[in-house]
Amino acid sequence: MSTGSALERELRSIVGEDGVLPTDTRAYLADATESRSISGRADAVVLPSTAEQVRELVAWSDRAEVPLIPRGGGTGFAGGAVPVDGGVVVALERMTAIRAFDPGLWRMQVEAGVTTATVRRLARENGLVFPPDPGAGEQSQIGGNIATNAGGPHAFKYGVTGAWVSGLEVAVAPGELITLGGPIRKDVAGYDLLSLLVGSEGTLGIVTAAWLKLIPAPEAALPVVAFYDGIQAGCAAVEAVMASGLPAAVLEYLDAGALAAAGGSLAAGVPEGAAFAVISEADGSGAEATRVRAGLVEVLEPGSLGVHSPEGLREVAELWRWRDGVSIAVTAQRGGKVSEDIVVPVDRLRDAITGTLLIGKRHGLEACSWGHAGDGNIHSTFLIEPGSQAELERAEAAAGDLFALAVELGGSISGEHGIGLVKGGRLAGQWDPSAIAIHGRIKAALDPKNLMNPGKKLAGGPLQV
Amino acid sequence: MSTGSALERELRSIVGEDGVLPTDTRAYLADATESRSISGRADAVVLPSTAEQVRELVAWSDRAEVPLIPRGGGTGFAGGAVPVDGGVVVALERMTAIRAFDPGLWRMQVEAGVTTATVRRLARENGLVFPPDPGAGEQSQIGGNIATNAGGPHAFKYGVTGAWVSGLEVAVAPGELITLGGPIRKDVAGYDLLSLLVGSEGTLGIVTAAWLKLIPAPEAALPVVAFYDGIQAGCAAVEAVMASGLPAAVLEYLDAGALAAAGGSLAAGVPEGAAFAVISEADGSGAEATRVRAGLVEVLEPGSLGVHSPEGLREVAELWRWRDGVSIAVTAQRGGKVSEDIVVPVDRLRDAITGTLLIGKRHGLEACSWGHAGDGNIHSTFLIEPGSQAELERAEAAAGDLFALAVELGGSISGEHGIGLVKGGRLAGQWDPSAIAIHGRIKAALDPKNLMNPGKKLAGGPLQV
Repeated sequence: MSTGSALERELRSIVGEDGVLPTDTRAYLADATESRSISGRADAVVLPSTAEQVRELVAWSDRAEVPLIPRGGGTGFAGGAVPVDGGVVVALERMTAIRAFDPGLWRMQVEAGVTTATVRRLARENGLVFPPDPGAGEQSQIGGNIATNAGGPHAFKYGVTGAWVSGLEVAVAPGELITLGGPIRKDVAGYDLLSLLVGSEGTLGIVTAAWLKLIPAPEAALPVVAFYDGIQAGCAAVEAVMASGLPAAVLEYLDAGALAAAGGSLAAGVPEGAAFAVISEADGSGAEATRVRAGLVEVLEPGSLGVHSPEGLREVAELWRWRDGVSIAVTAQRGGKVSEDIVVPVDRLRDAITGTLLIGKRHGLEACSWGHAGDGNIHSTFLIEPGSQAELERAEAAAGDLFALAVELGGSISGEHGIGLVKGGRLAGQWDPSAIAIHGRIKAALDPKNLMNPGKKLAGGPLQV
Repeated sequence: MSTGSALERELRSIVGEDGVLPTDTRAYLADATESRSISGRADAVVLPSTAEQVRELVAWSDRAEVPLIPRGGGTGFAGGAVPVDGGVVVALERMTAIRAFDPGLWRMQVEAGVTTATVRRLARENGLVFPPDPGAGEQSQIGGNIATNAGGPHAFKYGVTGAWVSGLEVAVAPGELITLGGPIRKDVAGYDLLSLLVGSEGTLGIVTAAWLKLIPAPEAALPVVAFYDGIQAGCAAVEAVMASGLPAAVLEYLDAGALAAAGGSLAAGVPEGAAFAVISEADGSGAEATRVRAGLVEVLEPGSLGVHSPEGLREVAELWRWRDGVSIAVTAQRGGKVSEDIVVPVDRLRDAITGTLLIGKRHGLEACSWGHAGDGNIHSTFLIEPGSQAELERAEAAAGDLFALAVELGGSISGEHGIGLVKGGRLAGQWDPSAIAIHGRIKAALDPKNLMNPGKKLAGGPLQV
């Protein structure tokens, strides 16, 4: 059934008959989880099965001068995987091979389409852990996690995705498959192109496979949840955990609005008057986790309205499932939201949390925040009614104010989501003009024809090539 | 005393009268620790005191088209800080300000000339630790550690220098001071230029200051040293530690030659017949370190000729001082050495250690190795007589074979020292041609006139700009 346009026929010759989807396959034209309703138009949607096919697609793109838009699980928040105005969506979901797994050597090589949950499950079944734990693990793919340098609660102790990638296979312009790093744990031979590719949101090349580092799983992980009457007491508790010198594995928070939205489904309940929650976790051997947990309770209890520390494996898993559901619970409040993930120095956390509420008020929107307190990485969120253009516009204006606040507090406009489409050009408010210029020259050095996810991760104005 | 050439007068106007040294100041013209006797010629040696002076030097270099060669503590092994044929050596040793230190927030901002030992001491005095521990800490400077992405024994658990840098202030062409990151723990706003600068050996810009991340110091660190009759048993022990799932903080080794050179000064002695040593370490709370140490002893003992685990703080410190002195002890065997720091996948460790000996034999040189077994990062060393041109040439040929071996084993030609001058062009044997081309384009994007440490970290042939 070699029907369709000449373009589709060319693509079928690369990815096979069943590798080209109808161009109106809506699941591939928008973020799965975003409320801004950004969706686009693609000239084709293709599902390559091998790295060689991805390489051929890049070579074809270079010849045909048609852009490629790589796509993982579609769980991004910044429109990074959305085709704006044509081009070929390259969805990596068929590239699911576990190419190598050496549990005794703490490493695994997987293709880009393997889900994060699969990586974590395989590791866990072999006594190991892949520490990055961004939300939506069952849907998000490791290639997308790498493209955004995804984080998650455990990044506080263990770092973000990039810290766990030792090698990449990448298809780059004008159609070559290159390998950076490998199953090795150190490498200073060349410039760190691997780290440059991590977090580049598909604008410098398409990651086809990765070598991941793993570590022995801690025997136990014991969370502690503490409740406070407000931002002041809650942020003091966050700083107290850091000052205690306890090796906490996570340090999360929910403000009053997030707690109001999600608290009802917390099994252990929320104490009367609680307007802030802090979640920490002790891990290590059974004895060590127990010791650290006792320390955390001692640090978190003073000034709190109550401390809850689940024990059983089921209770602990349930707490993290609940935490993973906070974003959805917040969305459910009004049906939609605009949520940004600014970062600030930890000592400016209370200013960022308070500032989020003030900005919401200024724009007539309910606001709340939650997230990775110990990393100063917060999900500042403005609630909107789906379909209300007026509210969406106010929320966009609020997001603009929020980015300005992040920069004013000495922080960054994104800790996890990236620039994607929605923050295009915003980096110019944060970086020195010279750094912005270098950003553009790096893009041009790797993608001279601007065919790799064009229009995404733009630092300043439109790319000059 | 504004005497000297016009060039010196111009430089004095930037760095002050006492900031320009005589051009024959030999300490600034060679690596402090290297046996290849690479030394060069400088048009001037300057000692800037502020970041603004460094920026002015970069602007001057751009106008005058005179290269700059940044220099830290001079403890590199690859000639990366050696002026080859003219240019201005920019030694950062006067930039020693601790700009900020927030122990409760686990962070510190220091200028490039602060020694690694100072950073570690300050952290330790406040209950924290800066984990990277490359050798020569008292002399090596943090700017140089960043420029080479230095490692050390504790990189096995804690990662290399780059993992602990959250912000950089860098002077870039054509004379701008830019800030990348800051006192924040996450940042995916732009391309990861910070990681690109780390390990770039002063060829993309000059680091003037850095924000460092710290962590609470473990209460205890208890090393375990085990001896074996050879490479086979020793490498099996290394893999056994990893397979055990114990969270070892370090995993080092010495082969027979290294042990013969350094063993005599080990306080606890070396058992009869020992031809391989493995050093591991348990850290954490007192109880945790004791528990893990017991586990390590249990894993390391079978098949060993003896296990030694020092207890007292003084004994532990002495063991690490001894380990730090291995390189010097090896040099003392014949007066000189050529030592390279290849990396291989951990399962190829025995091939790399054996291969080093075979290569030495082929070139008529005594050889040995030691290093970071758990990271597969070994210091393969060929002993030479100082001043013997014939031996030096044989050692260079041996190093070439060694690089080929590293690549053949799926590894890298450098895990710690970098490319510098001595490995210029060697990357072409390891990377795909397309990656080599990107390497060159990145250099040109940041340093279009090729004035930043020219001739260093060359990936392929001489740089085309």
